[in-house]
Amino acid sequence: MFQFLDIIGTLAFAISGALTGWHKKLDPFGVFIIAFVTALGGGTLRDILIGRTPVGWMLDLTYVYMIILGFIATIILKTRLEKLRISLFLFDTIGLGIFTIIGLEKGIEIGLHPIICIALGTMTASFGGVIRDILCNEIPVIFRKEIYATISISGGVLFFSLNEFQLNKDILYLVTSSFMIVFRLLAVKNKWYLPSPYKE
Amino acid sequence: MFQFLDIIGTLAFAISGALTGWHKKLDPFGVFIIAFVTALGGGTLRDILIGRTPVGWMLDLTYVYMIILGFIATIILKTRLEKLRISLFLFDTIGLGIFTIIGLEKGIEIGLHPIICIALGTMTASFGGVIRDILCNEIPVIFRKEIYATISISGGVLFFSLNEFQLNKDILYLVTSSFMIVFRLLAVKNKWYLPSPYKE
Amino acid sequence: MFQFLDIIGTLAFAISGALTGWHKKLDPFGVFIIAFVTALGGGTLRDILIGRTPVGWMLDLTYVYMIILGFIATIILKTRLEKLRISLFLFDTIGLGIFTIIGLEKGIEIGLHPIICIALGTMTASFGGVIRDILCNEIPVIFRKEIYATISISGGVLFFSLNEFQLNKDILYLVTSSFMIVFRLLAVKNKWYLPSPYKE
Repeated sequence: MFQFLDIIGTLAFAISGALTGWHKKLDPFGVFIIAFVTALGGGTLRDILIGRTPVGWMLDLTYVYMIILGFIATIILKTRLEKLRISLFLFDTIGLGIFTIIGLEKGIEIGLHPIICIALGTMTASFGGVIRDILCNEIPVIFRKEIYATISISGGVLFFSLNEFQLNKDILYLVTSSFMIVFRLLAVKNKWYLPSPYKE
Repeated sequence: MFQFLDIIGTLAFAISGALTGWHKKLDPFGVFIIAFVTALGGGTLRDILIGRTPVGWMLDLTYVYMIILGFIATIILKTRLEKLRISLFLFDTIGLGIFTIIGLEKGIEIGLHPIICIALGTMTASFGGVIRDILCNEIPVIFRKEIYATISISGGVLFFSLNEFQLNKDILYLVTSSFMIVFRLLAVKNKWYLPSPYKE
Repeated sequence: MFQFLDIIGTLAFAISGALTGWHKKLDPFGVFIIAFVTALGGGTLRDILIGRTPVGWMLDLTYVYMIILGFIATIILKTRLEKLRISLFLFDTIGLGIFTIIGLEKGIEIGLHPIICIALGTMTASFGGVIRDILCNEIPVIFRKEIYATISISGGVLFFSLNEFQLNKDILYLVTSSFMIVFRLLAVKNKWYLPSPYKE
């Protein structure tokens, strides 16, 4: 189930990346690369930083196939995908929840401090988008207005707090990822932002 | 011979990077760094992703000396180099062919899947230019119009197809790199681009 | 003493990064990330390139705490920090000297060539700023006008020259870092730049 959601998350991130590349009017290769880094850039950066090389997607091709699928789907179904904006947003939100937990677990596996694990979870979920924005020559959107990383960080804190209670792993995963998904849905619905420290 | 062409390719990439830095009116340090990342950025990214560290140029200084040479040549001969634009383009094209094969081989050495090896070949040949463009604050040119990465990918596919026939390695290298070089020359001469998916 | 200065340098770099993020009107998460990469980006890149993973700050949380401290200090004391511009510049200059030596030592530890060690020193001291500028969508300032990397490089050359005389390590560190600090103070005071190769 978890594995399945991971793959769905990758596909959603790839489609969202491909749509961004399309809007930037890149050529097909550019669109593909943006789909790729949006989906796998965060996990790749995490793997490099913790020395888990060759990085994950080089050893399990499922992820690469998902990105090829997302790329082709975007090229073919472009107009319909725009209408599916809401479904895509849902997948993307599921991806946020799942990817955060995957990043947390990688850090725990090699015995890193909880603060570092939370950083790895956040990186896995949101730095693909940071790399996408850099390649598209923009200041990363999550540094400016989206309450995205904050949700990952909160999810990570909840994860370690609940972990104190020796919960079953599956329940822990389910509660933490549901929390992040609901948090994001509420955040977007109610237009929550981080408090701006700037006087207008 | 192959080693020799590799060094020529590095020098050509370094000069092309230095010229870019110059046109951006960077200071000498900036010009040097742009020469460096254009020539070695792709291979460095590849080495990091597969965990081949310390990365290649830290262990064999030949490459660093080539970049210093290319940097100095550019500073001194600037005006003449502009006239040598065609020779430079030729070297750059040779670099494309050679670097692709080097990247492919690194992936094969550690037993990665052909798809990943082709990705590594493409990365080695073209991601130095991507990093150069990011540092110069532009959307990477190979994501927008140049049919550059496509040539690397085609070369990689040809490499693995021919490999089925148990060819002699030298012949395999020669045929694959010649194919890429001729492909590039024809592509530039005839202004071939990837089909644009956008209606004008 | 050296350890202490390293921490002060990290704090100074973090504050200088946070102030940059603030001026770019990023949200609090963005300001934090810019503080982080300015302070630790250079050392992180160095660790990745030489294969020293998990990277340093994942194993010793002191650095992360310093960045959190620098981030909070900037948010709270913003206006006063602007007035402390001169103290900050001093800390930043100390950071330049210390970080260069730390980078040099990491290269020496694993037996790399002096040229590569000097590159690692320069990277440690100045590539945090390069990553900061890329994230803020600007051409890195040290590629354009600041005589910053040049000071690191000169410090590295002095380090290896003095090393020939079998000096005591502490004296070697003290002399080299003092040289870089004085060099920077003089460079800024007298507005020294690298000679521009461009005719105005």
